Amino acid sequence: MTAIEALVAELGDGIVELHDISERYRTDWSGSSPTAPVALVRPRTTEQVSAALAICDRHGQTVVTQGGLTGLAGGAVPRPGDVALSLERMTGVDEIDPAAATMTVWAGTTLEAAQLAALDAGFELTYDLGARGTATVGGNVATNAGGNRVIRYGMTREHVLGLEGVLADGTVVSSLNKLLKNNAGYDLKQLFIGTEGTLGVVTRIVFRLRPAPASRTTALLACPDYDAVLSNLASFRRVPHLSAFEVMWPTYYDVIAERRGGVTPPIDIGAGRAAVVELSGDDPDGDLGLMESMIGQAIEQGTVTDAFLARSAADTEAIWAMREAGPTDGIVGLLHFDVGLPTGDIDRFVTTVEQRLAARWPDVVVYPFGHIADGNVHCNPTVGSDDPETVEQVDHVVYDTVAEFGGSVSAEHGIGTVKKPYLDRSRSATEIALMRRLKDALDPNGILNPGKVV
Amino acid sequence: MTAIEALVAELGDGIVELHDISERYRTDWSGSSPTAPVALVRPRTTEQVSAALAICDRHGQTVVTQGGLTGLAGGAVPRPGDVALSLERMTGVDEIDPAAATMTVWAGTTLEAAQLAALDAGFELTYDLGARGTATVGGNVATNAGGNRVIRYGMTREHVLGLEGVLADGTVVSSLNKLLKNNAGYDLKQLFIGTEGTLGVVTRIVFRLRPAPASRTTALLACPDYDAVLSNLASFRRVPHLSAFEVMWPTYYDVIAERRGGVTPPIDIGAGRAAVVELSGDDPDGDLGLMESMIGQAIEQGTVTDAFLARSAADTEAIWAMREAGPTDGIVGLLHFDVGLPTGDIDRFVTTVEQRLAARWPDVVVYPFGHIADGNVHCNPTVGSDDPETVEQVDHVVYDTVAEFGGSVSAEHGIGTVKKPYLDRSRSATEIALMRRLKDALDPNGILNPGKVV
Ligand SMILES: Cc1cc2nc3c(=O)[nH]c(=O)nc-3n(C[C@H](O)[C@H](O)[C@H](O)COP(=O)(O)OP(=O)(O)OC[C@H]3O[C@@H](n4cnc5c(N)ncnc54)[C@H](O)[C@@H]3O)c2cc1C
Ligand SMILES: Cc1cc2nc3c(=O)[nH]c(=O)nc-3n(C[C@H](O)[C@H](O)[C@H](O)COP(=O)(O)OP(=O)(O)OC[C@H]3O[C@@H](n4cnc5c(N)ncnc54)[C@H](O)[C@@H]3O)c2cc1C
Repeated sequence: MTAIEALVAELGDGIVELHDISERYRTDWSGSSPTAPVALVRPRTTEQVSAALAICDRHGQTVVTQGGLTGLAGGAVPRPGDVALSLERMTGVDEIDPAAATMTVWAGTTLEAAQLAALDAGFELTYDLGARGTATVGGNVATNAGGNRVIRYGMTREHVLGLEGVLADGTVVSSLNKLLKNNAGYDLKQLFIGTEGTLGVVTRIVFRLRPAPASRTTALLACPDYDAVLSNLASFRRVPHLSAFEVMWPTYYDVIAERRGGVTPPIDIGAGRAAVVELSGDDPDGDLGLMESMIGQAIEQGTVTDAFLARSAADTEAIWAMREAGPTDGIVGLLHFDVGLPTGDIDRFVTTVEQRLAARWPDVVVYPFGHIADGNVHCNPTVGSDDPETVEQVDHVVYDTVAEFGGSVSAEHGIGTVKKPYLDRSRSATEIALMRRLKDALDPNGILNPGKVV
Repeated sequence: MTAIEALVAELGDGIVELHDISERYRTDWSGSSPTAPVALVRPRTTEQVSAALAICDRHGQTVVTQGGLTGLAGGAVPRPGDVALSLERMTGVDEIDPAAATMTVWAGTTLEAAQLAALDAGFELTYDLGARGTATVGGNVATNAGGNRVIRYGMTREHVLGLEGVLADGTVVSSLNKLLKNNAGYDLKQLFIGTEGTLGVVTRIVFRLRPAPASRTTALLACPDYDAVLSNLASFRRVPHLSAFEVMWPTYYDVIAERRGGVTPPIDIGAGRAAVVELSGDDPDGDLGLMESMIGQAIEQGTVTDAFLARSAADTEAIWAMREAGPTDGIVGLLHFDVGLPTGDIDRFVTTVEQRLAARWPDVVVYPFGHIADGNVHCNPTVGSDDPETVEQVDHVVYDTVAEFGGSVSAEHGIGTVKKPYLDRSRSATEIALMRRLKDALDPNGILNPGKVV
């Protein structure tokens, strides 16, 4: 019996599909070339995940795990011969424990559904990203997603108290811990967090929740230059309930504004930088006052030249819509970079990359934006083409510059296949060898997401 | 050549001592029976750590790593035949990077020295524990220490951005990352954090720093009962710059007060619970006002019956001295427990343990205190004797109750040898098997802290 026959025999054709597999299981948002999986397995239970992996492991059948397929590193894209294992039927909230302030969620649940369920119970799941409507919590954990609130609450890793996962051989590791502090032996959940599905499949997650804040106060600031951004960041950082500080460069800002038929909210940033600042708290009036007075001071100091303070939900949404729109639509050959750098060096990095690309492609445009406070910029350029050879050449320019700046080739999106050739720009040979050692120990037959990360 | 001869030949007798080894390398603060190591190695450099481990690994020579020996789980206590590897000569701050807000420190540095160096540079290293003067940062990382500020900043794990460590075979893994976000491959530092020296030796650490707060505002509250504690916790949790919320039970409170010749600060808690509350911020007057008004409201609501608000550094110190004194001195047969539980269940747990112990030892006294907000109580009882048989019987009562409450046998101190027999109360057989698999992969000859944790 082949692996595929065994899968069908064990799980049935309601779970295992071989024909007419929808195109959406062929690629993610990285733009990697679409590849059809040899079969699509969509289990409903952890036991079925376990049974599927045990069969694949025995047969040496490779498996690619898929969440919402919003990944930007190609991690969920099948490679030829892969079985696709989609978590999309394992959805829903298992439990919200108000006393413990935890939520136990199935891995295939979208982030947005989990956030809303938490809110319904008076709590907040305090990480957030633009892809919330489609990305799954399992994918977020597997990629250790970052997003807009890292400055206050940390990456997805910091939100996970416990999880249930399945190892390559089908072993179910149930570590559904709800305790905030638990040093009873090794912290096994770390094997599943940020390892992009190469060491195991996440099936269920216990998230830490926090009381939902009564209000969010959001402003959009025009800063004349990056030094002014840093100066505002330094002031706002002292506000303990600062929950976001995001920055857009003028190329990005203008293209989004134009696409939306004009700049709304109406602030002019000229050649400066636009910063989105958000406070989450329990004193809406106090926070509005605080924001006003901080902006007032910044205007006096010349570190803010124009500002828009949201006074309604619609205002807030307008600000975030700009930041989250992403410059993708309609820009020919736009490439994605998710670079980690010391916050202070980001603008200089952007300029350096721009200059180096311009030396070769004079028409290059870079559309940088991102989570500056956490040292993370999405420094997305276009040189007018995304044919593989050009992409490789641009990659080299960008990643060599990252290495020069002591940065990371992936701050939050992960390595997948897209950034695998450049892992050595941020990791030593010894580190990569240790990653392989872990991979070999936990997935000796190499069936889980082969060719990804390491 | 034996392992010991090879160590002396390679490192010299300035680094390797065989005779007159001081007694202090024989045990830690757990009270485990003292055992002399066969040799004491005190390297000055990472290369020497690497050389020592490579030799020991080749010879199958077991090694116990020692930091400040303040551990409460016996992890740093030699077992017969062990070489002791002390980090005490690898001390000092390697670098403080103000722009990145990071500090790179050698593992043998005491926590207090690291904290002071950060303060000197205008920053705060935001974890803290009573043993700060002796415990080392390497020990803190190896045990993933908790302490007094977890409620705001998380455990030691959350403070580590990067580290340098040495694997059992002498491989130096240098992951001295300073970036806040770095998803470039597996997060290897997790192998060293909280694994109590069983997977590798930590030699250097990059800590995340935060701007030093301008002020700390501290109060001691008498709460009539545990429900009142929870109600105060709920209110104070909404203050985003709450940095500590600790609780003492009356037995603990009274014994410390008595030892100090009277209750200072002078508040009477009767049969209630004493809570230490701390805000760290930049607005001392505002925080004093906030604390006063919150205490005022609590008094009105009857959830606080008496309070002392620190108005000087001496006041603050007096409050913390009570909380940190620990009831150890002079109490015959006091046993230590470091239990993780849902916050809401802690008082009921304490009472249950008390009753179960009293059924057998009518004179039992329990002295509970701890980091309640994080679900962590040090539920320390005495039944008048600490002979091994009694200890084992008490252990069984406590840990079986922990299992019943779905708790952790170690919230922050780790497993070491002391809690190893009870690991199965908090971890499944599958989890323990996976820990062993990791151990075998990274330390195949089992030379690092054998017999500890797993
Ligand atoms: C508009 C947009 C905005 C974005 N913003 C952000 C942002 O701010 N921050 C950020 O970090 N990312 C961002 N991303 C990237 C992406 O959303 C995240 O990487 C997200 O975590 C992926 O989740 P997913 O469910 O779509 O995973 P997929 O794309 O399906 O998979 C991603 C990786 O995780 C693995 N995986 C998925 N589910 C599991 C599972 N259950 N068990 C084991 N492995 C699994 C896959 O094999 C793959 O390697 C954005 C993407 C888009 C399109
Ligand atoms: C008064 C007092 C108060 C305390 N308060 C707290 C508290 O609030 N929170 C808390 O969590 N703990 C507390 N502890 C326990 C103890 O201080 C911590 O566990 C501390 O982290 C141990 O550090 P150390 O340097 O003394 O380590 P040691 O006791 O020397 O070693 C502890 C463990 O770590 C390993 N280890 C040490 N250094 C290294 C290294 N460089 N590389 C690899 N492994 C290493 C050892 O092998 C051992 O397994 C307290 C202890 C005392 C005595």
